[in-house]
Amino acid sequence: MSETLHFPAEQAAKLEQYLPQKGSDLHLTLTFATSLDSAISLRPGVQTALSGPESKAMTHYLRSKHKAILIGVGTAIADDPGLNCRIEGSTSQPRPVIVDPRARWPLNSELKVIRLAREGKGLAPFVIVSSAAMVADQSDKDLKDWGGKYIKVPERAGGGFSWSHIMQILKSEGLDSVMVEGGGTVINSLLWEENLEYINSVILTIAPTWLGKGGVVVSPDRDRGEQGNVPAARLRDVKWCPLGEDVVLCGRPTNRICNWK
Amino acid sequence: MSETLHFPAEQAAKLEQYLPQKGSDLHLTLTFATSLDSAISLRPGVQTALSGPESKAMTHYLRSKHKAILIGVGTAIADDPGLNCRIEGSTSQPRPVIVDPRARWPLNSELKVIRLAREGKGLAPFVIVSSAAMVADQSDKDLKDWGGKYIKVPERAGGGFSWSHIMQILKSEGLDSVMVEGGGTVINSLLWEENLEYINSVILTIAPTWLGKGGVVVSPDRDRGEQGNVPAARLRDVKWCPLGEDVVLCGRPTNRICNWK
Repeated sequence: MSETLHFPAEQAAKLEQYLPQKGSDLHLTLTFATSLDSAISLRPGVQTALSGPESKAMTHYLRSKHKAILIGVGTAIADDPGLNCRIEGSTSQPRPVIVDPRARWPLNSELKVIRLAREGKGLAPFVIVSSAAMVADQSDKDLKDWGGKYIKVPERAGGGFSWSHIMQILKSEGLDSVMVEGGGTVINSLLWEENLEYINSVILTIAPTWLGKGGVVVSPDRDRGEQGNVPAARLRDVKWCPLGEDVVLCGRPTNRICNWK
Repeated sequence: MSETLHFPAEQAAKLEQYLPQKGSDLHLTLTFATSLDSAISLRPGVQTALSGPESKAMTHYLRSKHKAILIGVGTAIADDPGLNCRIEGSTSQPRPVIVDPRARWPLNSELKVIRLAREGKGLAPFVIVSSAAMVADQSDKDLKDWGGKYIKVPERAGGGFSWSHIMQILKSEGLDSVMVEGGGTVINSLLWEENLEYINSVILTIAPTWLGKGGVVVSPDRDRGEQGNVPAARLRDVKWCPLGEDVVLCGRPTNRICNWK
């Protein structure tokens, strides 16, 4: 867990144009790894090793270029991720942000992200919960002691948060660059047409494996106005970078595809 | 339809090791194009333009390297494909093979593949039907006149053919290299663990698009003996070749993945 990771400069150079630039307002990078059949895990709640070691180093490199790392509560529970940055030469840590409308995340001192924060190897998370969610006083106090906090946000009528609310929170906290790492619910919600505008770049790793039917799949809903006959999303400014056995796809979303049959 | 296509030699060189080699017994190349969410079309029966013009040239180049092109009847009906080879300098045509257990393909002189055969720009197909399927005498005669034929094969108990039967037919017809182009049923059946052994190489094009939920998806069934906790298939000898906006993935299947969590 404590080893330092190295990401080669020539690989890093290829990603440069997709990373937050100085003076940008608020930059969101969507990054995740899938199988060839677009699955991020074998089934809900099961952490699945997909991409190779080079890809892990890339993830930590990307974390060093963002002020915040955002994940959904499902991933926080399934993976117990560290959410810190272990790239060599990194001088600061990103802020973990956990989107947890119903305050399901079982905060305790043994969670990896909390342990790393207590050891000074990472930051404690900001947990975004619904205004109506019940957070125990002890949890509230503990998280503050460790350097994190709960942030209450109104839920939408249908449940969950709007991305515009989440972006506002990040801005008001001074987190002007965020890397969204998963899981399926968060990614599919961002790739849904109405939310594509919040994505500045996508950095997607694909492993040469088919997980097979039954996995947790990235595949957004289609625009209903088009009766489902138009692709959900396409990337422009595309770059494919082979990385070990995997490939890394970089691009920016276009939220309207013209001349499509 | 009649333009000649050019596939650059430097691109072709990258594919060389995955193509049929002299003296090989029977070589099967599985090749298709998907979206990032592993869809080959927006919905069943709807032809969907996915990959770019470079990928089209590659398909015709690959056809020039195989004696047969095999597709399922669903694709034959949905796409009305020509299934000939229009790469520059090509001196022979591949044999189209249509897998059509229930003899659903509505043979007539206006189908693209038949028109091309009549014009000497391609070969008429071999249509593999079930022993029990009813083929009209007129169809049988017409297809023979155009240079093709129906081939009757026993169906398995559960319906459909076994790949070992299909391979035997190809061999007995002298078609010792075959390129399988689709559609979803055929591809998923080949990628199912028991049939992986029939695949010599996979050449898969991925376009930087999410078609979204509801598409025809390539994602094989998982081995039931493992209770679905093991990925369905993985490729080895992997090569990723960017091609226009798309990427081409070449590899060979491994039908058992060790040390997998």
